[in-house]
Amino acid sequence: MGDPYGIGPEIVAKSLSSKKLPGANYSVVGLKEVFDALPARRRRRLNLIEPKATETPSDFTKPRVSAAGGHAAAACIRKGVEMILAGEADALVTAPICKEALHAAGYTWPGHTEMLSELTRAPRHAMMFAGPRLKVSLATIHTAVRDLPTLITMDRVLDTIELTHEAMRRWFRRAKPKIAVAGLNPHAGENGAFGTEDKDRIAPAVELSRQKGVDATGPLPADTLFYRLYRGEFDAGVCMYHDQALAPFKMIHFKDGVNLTLGLPFVRTSPDHGTAFDLAWRNRADPSSLIAAIRLAANLAGKGRRS
Amino acid sequence: MGDPYGIGPEIVAKSLSSKKLPGANYSVVGLKEVFDALPARRRRRLNLIEPKATETPSDFTKPRVSAAGGHAAAACIRKGVEMILAGEADALVTAPICKEALHAAGYTWPGHTEMLSELTRAPRHAMMFAGPRLKVSLATIHTAVRDLPTLITMDRVLDTIELTHEAMRRWFRRAKPKIAVAGLNPHAGENGAFGTEDKDRIAPAVELSRQKGVDATGPLPADTLFYRLYRGEFDAGVCMYHDQALAPFKMIHFKDGVNLTLGLPFVRTSPDHGTAFDLAWRNRADPSSLIAAIRLAANLAGKGRRS
Repeated sequence: MGDPYGIGPEIVAKSLSSKKLPGANYSVVGLKEVFDALPARRRRRLNLIEPKATETPSDFTKPRVSAAGGHAAAACIRKGVEMILAGEADALVTAPICKEALHAAGYTWPGHTEMLSELTRAPRHAMMFAGPRLKVSLATIHTAVRDLPTLITMDRVLDTIELTHEAMRRWFRRAKPKIAVAGLNPHAGENGAFGTEDKDRIAPAVELSRQKGVDATGPLPADTLFYRLYRGEFDAGVCMYHDQALAPFKMIHFKDGVNLTLGLPFVRTSPDHGTAFDLAWRNRADPSSLIAAIRLAANLAGKGRRS
Repeated sequence: MGDPYGIGPEIVAKSLSSKKLPGANYSVVGLKEVFDALPARRRRRLNLIEPKATETPSDFTKPRVSAAGGHAAAACIRKGVEMILAGEADALVTAPICKEALHAAGYTWPGHTEMLSELTRAPRHAMMFAGPRLKVSLATIHTAVRDLPTLITMDRVLDTIELTHEAMRRWFRRAKPKIAVAGLNPHAGENGAFGTEDKDRIAPAVELSRQKGVDATGPLPADTLFYRLYRGEFDAGVCMYHDQALAPFKMIHFKDGVNLTLGLPFVRTSPDHGTAFDLAWRNRADPSSLIAAIRLAANLAGKGRRS
């Protein structure tokens, strides 16, 4: 369901009445009172499952940051994870949540990814953005540029390369995926002229991954990396930070980009936008990205079981 | 001419024999011996002007970093600037130079832009990348990510916004250009959650520019900024650093992107690639980007005089 004050309930209902979804058994984890506030024709095909004992937030059709919204969103995610771990579902698709609402509810997770990796005790995780043409993973996500030189460690880069390799093999059926790894600095540091992280941390991570059998190349300058990825020279890219990946990715996949979590014991996707409080409960939200997320989850779910 | 060991001479000659150039009086500042080494049919239409007293580098058809190459490239740029300042030419187009060759020749400029602003005593300057669809300027260019929080000052951002505003008015004929300014951090810092530079330095620079009559908006998250720029919501973007601008720009304008220097007393353009020593003197270099640079310079030159 996502945050009930946001566009989540509306786009969930719109998506599940879309003719673009592949055949699958879809369940919606959400609050009945929230979905009852949507037009009747939107609710017809929803197989609703309620999380345990959660108060319905008051006045949820008036969009705002609310602790009750954060509680409800978190309860739905927990329930979804439980269903999967109990074998009642194969994949999880999440609608947008509001970080401030989660914080107001007393949770400290910065987002879905961290919450899910804690709930599933995943030892490592990464975020991938996937579109029909481009697939790109991030070594860091929501972090200040100031902190990047500290956070970009050899281990972190190596983990992201390996998770990307695994995902491309298991889910996207590439026997020997070619992975392009971006540098942190412009021109990938130009051999130390603009920063040393590229040669001191990223290059050794690429080398180690190669010794483990991954076909990784880099560090490459981010601007040419994306063009080469677009032309199909590589199967996936690994970027060092948010804007390096998202700005070029969204030029190609603004409407059909999907957020895919790597490192969890199941498939989990989400749209690549937020709660959009400015549009919520006005029947104006575009479900395209959520539809793309559901399609990708359904498509990958059969391939997602750990072997 | 650019660095004689690189692809400069070849793409200059190929460009000037292209039918895609608009009518103008083109002069090539270069060394006769270098251009004489190209096939005769490539040299037919070149109006060659030699810089003063420069030794011809030896063995220049064997591509490499060479002090003699750096000297020759610098001498040609100086001569070009002299011609413009003397009223003998209206615009300068530069072919690729090699930073290491310039350094080997004893110069300390990191690139063309800094060299030109020193030669013309321009009080401030910025680099813009211009394509038919996207125009975007950079507050910093070749600098390590580690140094960005220090280099992104309110003054630097304000200068870049103002230079972009001026360029869009004078050269691209927008009476009241709309300018989108990117944040430094993901989600433009999300109100301080991921770094403080966006609210402490970029937001005040945008506000000051608005008080001076510039229609600037920001700081905006870089990923949505580019999509909105692409859709035409803004006339130009201002980015904080190299990869933030170049990765999305090259997804759209890999072949027709041009580098345009803002803040000089004349129009100056260049292709957005380097000397490509791996391709040089093998008749394999693609002149597309230089042709785009010459076309843009010829197109803007009549509009480029300071009023």
